[in-house]
Amino acid sequence: MTTELYPRERLARVQEATAAAGLGAVLLTPGPDLRYVTGYNALPLERLTCLAVPAQGDPFLVVPRLELPAAQESPAGALDLELVPWDETDDPYALVAGRLPAGLLREGARVGVADRMWAVMALRFRAAMPGAEQVAAGTVLRGLRMRKSAAEVAALREAGAAIDRVHARVPEFLRPGRTEREVGRDIADAIIAEGHETVDFVIVGSGPNGANPHAELSDRVIGPGEPVVVDIGGQMPSGYCSDSTRNYCVGEPPAEYRAYFEVLRRAQQASCDAVKPGVTPEAVDAAGRQMIADAGYGEHFVHRTGHGIGLEVHEDPYIVSGNVEPLAPGMAFSVEPGIYVGPHGARIEDIVVCTENGYERLNHTERDLVIVG
Amino acid sequence: MTTELYPRERLARVQEATAAAGLGAVLLTPGPDLRYVTGYNALPLERLTCLAVPAQGDPFLVVPRLELPAAQESPAGALDLELVPWDETDDPYALVAGRLPAGLLREGARVGVADRMWAVMALRFRAAMPGAEQVAAGTVLRGLRMRKSAAEVAALREAGAAIDRVHARVPEFLRPGRTEREVGRDIADAIIAEGHETVDFVIVGSGPNGANPHAELSDRVIGPGEPVVVDIGGQMPSGYCSDSTRNYCVGEPPAEYRAYFEVLRRAQQASCDAVKPGVTPEAVDAAGRQMIADAGYGEHFVHRTGHGIGLEVHEDPYIVSGNVEPLAPGMAFSVEPGIYVGPHGARIEDIVVCTENGYERLNHTERDLVIVG
Repeated sequence: MTTELYPRERLARVQEATAAAGLGAVLLTPGPDLRYVTGYNALPLERLTCLAVPAQGDPFLVVPRLELPAAQESPAGALDLELVPWDETDDPYALVAGRLPAGLLREGARVGVADRMWAVMALRFRAAMPGAEQVAAGTVLRGLRMRKSAAEVAALREAGAAIDRVHARVPEFLRPGRTEREVGRDIADAIIAEGHETVDFVIVGSGPNGANPHAELSDRVIGPGEPVVVDIGGQMPSGYCSDSTRNYCVGEPPAEYRAYFEVLRRAQQASCDAVKPGVTPEAVDAAGRQMIADAGYGEHFVHRTGHGIGLEVHEDPYIVSGNVEPLAPGMAFSVEPGIYVGPHGARIEDIVVCTENGYERLNHTERDLVIVG
Repeated sequence: MTTELYPRERLARVQEATAAAGLGAVLLTPGPDLRYVTGYNALPLERLTCLAVPAQGDPFLVVPRLELPAAQESPAGALDLELVPWDETDDPYALVAGRLPAGLLREGARVGVADRMWAVMALRFRAAMPGAEQVAAGTVLRGLRMRKSAAEVAALREAGAAIDRVHARVPEFLRPGRTEREVGRDIADAIIAEGHETVDFVIVGSGPNGANPHAELSDRVIGPGEPVVVDIGGQMPSGYCSDSTRNYCVGEPPAEYRAYFEVLRRAQQASCDAVKPGVTPEAVDAAGRQMIADAGYGEHFVHRTGHGIGLEVHEDPYIVSGNVEPLAPGMAFSVEPGIYVGPHGARIEDIVVCTENGYERLNHTERDLVIVG
């Protein structure tokens, strides 16, 4: 078992998976796939950077000459990987196509393009390789990326601990009379201070805004007795992401809130407890959803139960009705049911990792409503 | 002349351009094209948000139901545009395809996809509309986006003034004994404090790092007599971007630096002075490049002269050899030649806008070397 986050052998594993999927090559531009395979966190620029991994033959990384120093200094520079710089007036798409095995340029070949490649780049590759059918490189990469290594789980655990430290400080920030935006700004600063490299999102949904699962920060003053949904996350220097939701109230919440919050707590626990190898994501979704429906709140749970997490804050596997691909050890995802009644709402979210026998939770702060002030 | 940044009539203009380009529709996912057309700064999510503009018939905006409140509150909510929400278990690609004119699903139709659409989304649209050939929506949008309106130029002018205020503060930050990273952190804070919404990049290239045009912030301590290249920019709340490069030195620089810096100043001025309607970008590039070559530094100017700027920090038109599409009033771009000799380097960058008779510069801080301390 490797303890490295971006192990050298991953490139070979991707090459094997490319061949096994019947693709002639995968082409990866800057984004989570490229970072996963090489550790290179390349900037998304209009100048093409592209890792080409042919099913047979040597992989190579085409980079704009201006980015060559950055690529060399990145973990990709230490791999057994030729770096191929191109100059300002070269055609880098032709350069990639010309270095790939000739068979790939013939009718019937299939080439994977990174799921997040810009369409304009995919179209230029199409023009440079007109015979090849393009498919999503996720075909090759999602199976690998979904099952986290021990080192990746450790990185997610570290991200979870960092966001837990932020939640532990939310009561300091959430004082009566402040606006969502003021509280949100303090939380964003804390996300960085507690070890993240970037802030991915900060939701501070007070009162009726708590009933909007994707509320944006507003200038609404948070009033006494108003429940507040705080859903926050960021990306760590490792590349791995955090995401956790907790619920706060300045003073005592309304009685009807207490009633459904208790249902939500049990539902979130039920969905977590459903997690083990072989179970489907839709069964995890159904476990909590049924409990919420049985208590009469079914219509108020308006979204899927969760999403995978890793180098992206939302990635496979999605915990949603219709997803029947069984869970396996190493899969990491959020479990975040919500009940949105109207004058207020609540959501509880932990990241969990499927283990050999069950699951490990990566967030540990108080899941009950936290009374502030 | 409209003074609105995101005028209502733009949607109709895009529809006309779509028909004129021979496309059946353009499909725009979150990114600069969608923002340009509707003012909606949608989040890039795995759940599909897509503006469909058919050449004939009514445009519509498909959004995940969770994002409906955000879309309604955005400028898109005030347009004559149907918002079509989809639910967690719907297929939004089929939803878009099903609402488009039937002719678009037939063989031979052509559909524009946003240049920055994720490839995985373009591939799903391909599956949902197998007869249609995909082309880059830039075919339709670049002509519109390249020629900035008076309101857009005003927004770029405001961005230029904001980054100028940051450059004016650099001498405070650039004290002897500090590292590039420390100085860079202060600059990033100032970029926000002076009115930007996000920091796009901060280059503080001291000594030999100044000879790397895309240097990353390092822990290198900035020494006396070392020239420092400071290239910074961000995005304003308007959506429009800033980008300006100036050169600083703690104490006196080496004599050989003075020699080529003077060449660079004249070259940057020469490229600016070449800007007027009808001139090609490659001629603007050549004006300064020739001067640098004549002075014997040609091999040390290793990149194009500039890039367009607007809702993206790099966009059309590119000021590069081979680009012969004539400049026109409203085109905005950087003019940023550099000379990178090895032990140090220099670059001078202003944003300029092509006017009816010549050009307007949007950056106004000292272009000569600024001696600090």
